[in-house]
Amino acid sequence: MPHEYHTRRRVEFSDTDMAGIVHFSRFFVFMETAEHEFLRSLGTSVTTEWNGDIVSWPRLAASCEYLKPAKFEDELDIQLTVHRKGTKSLTYRFVFTKGDVDIAWGKLSVVCCICNPGEKVRAIPIPDYIADHIEEAPHTELDG
Amino acid sequence: MPHEYHTRRRVEFSDTDMAGIVHFSRFFVFMETAEHEFLRSLGTSVTTEWNGDIVSWPRLAASCEYLKPAKFEDELDIQLTVHRKGTKSLTYRFVFTKGDVDIAWGKLSVVCCICNPGEKVRAIPIPDYIADHIEEAPHTELDG
Amino acid sequence: MPHEYHTRRRVEFSDTDMAGIVHFSRFFVFMETAEHEFLRSLGTSVTTEWNGDIVSWPRLAASCEYLKPAKFEDELDIQLTVHRKGTKSLTYRFVFTKGDVDIAWGKLSVVCCICNPGEKVRAIPIPDYIADHIEEAPHTELDG
Amino acid sequence: MPHEYHTRRRVEFSDTDMAGIVHFSRFFVFMETAEHEFLRSLGTSVTTEWNGDIVSWPRLAASCEYLKPAKFEDELDIQLTVHRKGTKSLTYRFVFTKGDVDIAWGKLSVVCCICNPGEKVRAIPIPDYIADHIEEAPHTELDG
Repeated sequence: MPHEYHTRRRVEFSDTDMAGIVHFSRFFVFMETAEHEFLRSLGTSVTTEWNGDIVSWPRLAASCEYLKPAKFEDELDIQLTVHRKGTKSLTYRFVFTKGDVDIAWGKLSVVCCICNPGEKVRAIPIPDYIADHIEEAPHTELDG
Repeated sequence: MPHEYHTRRRVEFSDTDMAGIVHFSRFFVFMETAEHEFLRSLGTSVTTEWNGDIVSWPRLAASCEYLKPAKFEDELDIQLTVHRKGTKSLTYRFVFTKGDVDIAWGKLSVVCCICNPGEKVRAIPIPDYIADHIEEAPHTELDG
Repeated sequence: MPHEYHTRRRVEFSDTDMAGIVHFSRFFVFMETAEHEFLRSLGTSVTTEWNGDIVSWPRLAASCEYLKPAKFEDELDIQLTVHRKGTKSLTYRFVFTKGDVDIAWGKLSVVCCICNPGEKVRAIPIPDYIADHIEEAPHTELDG
Repeated sequence: MPHEYHTRRRVEFSDTDMAGIVHFSRFFVFMETAEHEFLRSLGTSVTTEWNGDIVSWPRLAASCEYLKPAKFEDELDIQLTVHRKGTKSLTYRFVFTKGDVDIAWGKLSVVCCICNPGEKVRAIPIPDYIADHIEEAPHTELDG
């Protein structure tokens, strides 16, 4: 079962700011898009219908550490890892690299919810049709 | 009845790109936000409920001419004018200035629609509770 | 010589708005990114160094007509055409389609400039190392 | 000396996503804009010239916890606090509220640098003309 996903993304002009580098907020978009690609690679999506309910993944927390700037036209490698798999939530880690150089490290925690229009959002155990395809990555001593 | 609205907006860091100026796509966000402020100033909103239906304003067309660059921390004056008031649609014009200098001219055409979730969007005559508050600006010989 | 370029782009979650569709301002980013891919396909870039000067392409005007909404995870086809090739400027046209359905039509006019830091931006005839690779598309009777 | 700053911000349509709420990445833009307003309130800016050098504040790390969704037209209160004042860096905390309800808690760490064009960025002790105006907030037992 997969606990890792790899993708690439080229920096667009509109990702940059007047400092000549990728605006720090864009890395959160990059993380989310990688998360959604990961879910598609498993044959599912960030929003699915399940027994007449809409299942989706509201964000609980997001963070990023910026190591080196990324620039226009850079092609970034993005490594997604399933850091924690809880009953109702997932925490992803992301490593952004350009060639051999680490650019940024990110983290995104999301919670599985019923998100029906007009109803209160409520957390649920991750349904099997998703949970069965996702595995927590083996932890190393360095993990926080 | 109002056909004009004036607002100001300070350029944020994230509005800029690596050329050191406001990214051209941001002017469309500035126009839309001014449009929504205008609607609020009339006591309504871009999305309202009316007889159990959701009334909203999908975009038909948008354009902008760029005369001078805008920069970080610039405070832009935004003049909105109701250029055309049709039965079902509105066309707004926008003039962005910084002091005495014209920065950009924009245009936005929107159509009044029933936008109920799960239904096909369909255009409707602008309901009186909105139409009664909006007037077409007097045209000048220079108008296209 | 090329006067057309084709690319694809999948709609990301952050491209959407609360209406459940791609925000209209995002199409301008999609156009620009296609323009930059086109320039890269010719072996150049939107920003190049030439005889010690920085040559770049400030935007003069941009417009878009919205025909059908695009949604999350849609894969859009983007057809770029060089509509006008002037001495100093280019006008691109863009057709966004999803399968057989036209989603949006865009237009972007850009001007070739020396953009050295700390100097006034000034328009120049498109240098041969770029101009030699770009051709105006044959016009049809339908062209405006 | 100030260690707090308060501002308000109305949610714009383009801040929202198809889930009908503010996209999580936008809170990082809201934090940064509040930071820049804070610096302006002190009579300085995020980018200043000092002895012929450009002094600016690259981002080291950013994080946000999402407690309740924010929606279109919500007016958010943003409370900035100077959580840590180091020799070369600052850490800000942000509390986003809507009325009495906490919406999100954010954190942003930035480092003071010489950012001259064409040179390698290097961290410096915060110059007095900025440092003299900023104070670390008193810590409480709850602080992490």
